[in-house]
Amino acid sequence: ALPLSLIAGPCQIESRDHAFECAHALKEITSRLGIGFVFKSSYDKANRTSGSGTRGVGLAAAVQIFADIGAELQVPLLTDVHECQHCAIVGEVVDILQIPAFLCRQTDLLIAAAETGRVVNVKKGQFLAPWDMRNVIAKVTGAGNPNVMATERGASFGYNTLVSDFRSLPIMAGFGAPVIFDATHSVQQPGGQGTSSGGQREFVSVLARAAVAVGVAGLFIETHPDPDNAPSDGPNMIALRDFEALIRNLMRYDQVTKSAPSLA
Amino acid sequence: ALPLSLIAGPCQIESRDHAFECAHALKEITSRLGIGFVFKSSYDKANRTSGSGTRGVGLAAAVQIFADIGAELQVPLLTDVHECQHCAIVGEVVDILQIPAFLCRQTDLLIAAAETGRVVNVKKGQFLAPWDMRNVIAKVTGAGNPNVMATERGASFGYNTLVSDFRSLPIMAGFGAPVIFDATHSVQQPGGQGTSSGGQREFVSVLARAAVAVGVAGLFIETHPDPDNAPSDGPNMIALRDFEALIRNLMRYDQVTKSAPSLA
Amino acid sequence: ALPLSLIAGPCQIESRDHAFECAHALKEITSRLGIGFVFKSSYDKANRTSGSGTRGVGLAAAVQIFADIGAELQVPLLTDVHECQHCAIVGEVVDILQIPAFLCRQTDLLIAAAETGRVVNVKKGQFLAPWDMRNVIAKVTGAGNPNVMATERGASFGYNTLVSDFRSLPIMAGFGAPVIFDATHSVQQPGGQGTSSGGQREFVSVLARAAVAVGVAGLFIETHPDPDNAPSDGPNMIALRDFEALIRNLMRYDQVTKSAPSLA
Amino acid sequence: ALPLSLIAGPCQIESRDHAFECAHALKEITSRLGIGFVFKSSYDKANRTSGSGTRGVGLAAAVQIFADIGAELQVPLLTDVHECQHCAIVGEVVDILQIPAFLCRQTDLLIAAAETGRVVNVKKGQFLAPWDMRNVIAKVTGAGNPNVMATERGASFGYNTLVSDFRSLPIMAGFGAPVIFDATHSVQQPGGQGTSSGGQREFVSVLARAAVAVGVAGLFIETHPDPDNAPSDGPNMIALRDFEALIRNLMRYDQVTKSAPSLA
Repeated sequence: ALPLSLIAGPCQIESRDHAFECAHALKEITSRLGIGFVFKSSYDKANRTSGSGTRGVGLAAAVQIFADIGAELQVPLLTDVHECQHCAIVGEVVDILQIPAFLCRQTDLLIAAAETGRVVNVKKGQFLAPWDMRNVIAKVTGAGNPNVMATERGASFGYNTLVSDFRSLPIMAGFGAPVIFDATHSVQQPGGQGTSSGGQREFVSVLARAAVAVGVAGLFIETHPDPDNAPSDGPNMIALRDFEALIRNLMRYDQVTKSAPSLA
Repeated sequence: ALPLSLIAGPCQIESRDHAFECAHALKEITSRLGIGFVFKSSYDKANRTSGSGTRGVGLAAAVQIFADIGAELQVPLLTDVHECQHCAIVGEVVDILQIPAFLCRQTDLLIAAAETGRVVNVKKGQFLAPWDMRNVIAKVTGAGNPNVMATERGASFGYNTLVSDFRSLPIMAGFGAPVIFDATHSVQQPGGQGTSSGGQREFVSVLARAAVAVGVAGLFIETHPDPDNAPSDGPNMIALRDFEALIRNLMRYDQVTKSAPSLA
Repeated sequence: ALPLSLIAGPCQIESRDHAFECAHALKEITSRLGIGFVFKSSYDKANRTSGSGTRGVGLAAAVQIFADIGAELQVPLLTDVHECQHCAIVGEVVDILQIPAFLCRQTDLLIAAAETGRVVNVKKGQFLAPWDMRNVIAKVTGAGNPNVMATERGASFGYNTLVSDFRSLPIMAGFGAPVIFDATHSVQQPGGQGTSSGGQREFVSVLARAAVAVGVAGLFIETHPDPDNAPSDGPNMIALRDFEALIRNLMRYDQVTKSAPSLA
Repeated sequence: ALPLSLIAGPCQIESRDHAFECAHALKEITSRLGIGFVFKSSYDKANRTSGSGTRGVGLAAAVQIFADIGAELQVPLLTDVHECQHCAIVGEVVDILQIPAFLCRQTDLLIAAAETGRVVNVKKGQFLAPWDMRNVIAKVTGAGNPNVMATERGASFGYNTLVSDFRSLPIMAGFGAPVIFDATHSVQQPGGQGTSSGGQREFVSVLARAAVAVGVAGLFIETHPDPDNAPSDGPNMIALRDFEALIRNLMRYDQVTKSAPSLA
């Protein structure tokens, strides 16, 4: 298996400067570590807990920012799409289109993303069994696009709580798609702060270690220069200054996993 | 409180004749029973478990059928919307726009539905706590539309299983919206048949009795002349021939509930 | 089916006077209502959240109190047993031995209770599927005692939370045992107050109505003259002064259920 | 932190010869690997799914077998206790008394085990939040015994299914007790085979890797020369012939974890 790669970035594009600053810092760190890196950021938080939550810079502004980051920093890009008609537009500038967990069964969105020819990363719904991702993946491949990845980001466990079931990683890998573990959304507490989601940042490294030991193609980690003041997902993002040490530690587990004869 | 009303119909519009047949039969039954009735059917099953599942007649055909049913049978109509740009079109012909459970946090869809001026019925996501519907309802009312209803249709409980938490009914009623209990989707077993969802039809009347005793504004019940051969949701729909006896029984509980001094 | 019966009383025997006062008040109310009544109280809270919680008067004192209440008030009695060797002793004075939910799979305890010849009421574990009560019931009947009842008291739903799955009532009834719904423990929040369990008293009547509408042989309701100052289960017990109105309302639903042709 | 230790053995003592054979084989393997080893076996399966399940050799026979294994093989021993009065007897011959998950809140059993002066290993109930183990541990330490360990063995997740929440490991470690991960019961499917529990042996190594990467004092692994024909827990035990390779692999992760500066 290939070494671990990273999908990382701030939850949302807060501004051109902010996005560039994050992408630049992450490129520097990941280059130093010799680990694959895809820059992630959202142009629109389309399903905030509350209607009053900040949504981001929007599609038009984001397209230009993504194009410039890609050209200038030479890093691959990922963003999430919520509307079918956004897929083709976004597909012009990013390398991976991501399907949000709540939307993982929306057939038209999966097909529209697939038809861009870009890689499609589908987050498993909090309401979905791992084995049901087989049908989800087939919606993408059935549209003629074999480049589909599956991301674990937690399953509903009572109210306002997620649990990470690590059996899902080998189960989804069995469908032939590279499997990603989303270490920062998996510690979300959905709706847990009344009008926004809470999170347990302290468990990001715990769950990420577990995932890498089980074996994943990549990790998805949201990070921010100042998470406590971020407009969304602050409670579960990790601080940019903690990023390198976290990844350095995780790479040690990945070396063990990828060098071992598989036992799972 | 007002007596119980019904939202009922086949899961999807299978054909013009089929829709008319169901709507006509249900109108006859509900008139005989003296109970409010809204005809429900879907024009597109946009999130089937598998991409190979039948999706329905589509928007254009459905709009004409809805218009004709409304005009000819004089019954109010409900259908579910999955795309923002469908809302205005559908809003021309139906009285209630329904937001599917998976999409209950998609801000733009809620606003587009709200802006039609029609009643908006939001199904609570399987991943959502009852109290988090306060924010969902506020997205609709915040768009200037006070006519919003909330529907309980089960919460994720392990994999491929839902559980109905009846505490959600008074909790959601506390937000000022009429509360509906969806008795047929609450017995779904999502993805439970591999490439389609299973269901436990035998528990529809059990959970419906519980809901009516707790107290609801209405029930949502999918029904079909031949559920075992229906293209979707067959395992959880009830047979049209069993509909009248079921409702007659439920109305007896509703009379007790609505005549009692509230204890909840 | 027979009309609804009640198992009711304070969570624990706080003193001889307290137990007599509660039993007397409940006998008066239930006689007035014409509803069957079994007095319930515990002699030992053997599994408190914290070791510092009050445990009750103990076995020896309780046996005398139970004997006296039974003789003086002429009411049947129920208490819960946690140790095999208590069964024979307790069986001398009470009519129903109850197996606590955590202990519902302890074979020896089930057999020891069965061998008293008294009725055995088994609470379904928070960790147990309804259909697994078939094996539990068979442990009692296999010991030669056909008089076994099954009680629903909530299923684990994430942490510190229970959910009532009303499908369990007809499922357990299908095993031939009278089914009881425990309306006060079903609203417990186990461990929810750090060193004791919390509760949602406001949902007792909600869930009880649901249970009676679904159909049960009886309800289990803990009640207390002053729940907010009770040594255990205060947050979920209902006040004695609210008991009669609650039951009066529930009896109306029971009449509907028991007079209807079964639909479940 | 100290290197990983193992608690391992067959689910139940099937016979003197069988127990000796397993203990001997495991001692040989663990000596070769240079890893700490405690031999585990049960003398009584006191809470089988069904009353017809095999329960084991019983207390009297087991005490002699344990005494002989300890003397002859010079390995520390662990067994589980279900009755208070067994504790003192068992405490004569084993080094660690284990409290079964269903019984983790039974105050008297915890105290009786504590009073033997032996180490007490408490399995966290499937119904218990990790933070509620603080009170459980305090029941043991409050009885004057500081030697208490906490074991994660899965949490209820819908019916007949467990999920391993790896956040529980650092949470329980925060209470000062060595934390064990039970890799074979965590893949149980309680009651999943109708009259016995099912299991997913294929996930033992997956979850064990995750646990060791997160960081544990030890692993609990049931193993058997012929699991498919074992009288209990066969579906989740691993074959003795696969044991060494499994542990060898897990030790590589443990070295990473124990050599790293803690990040959790």
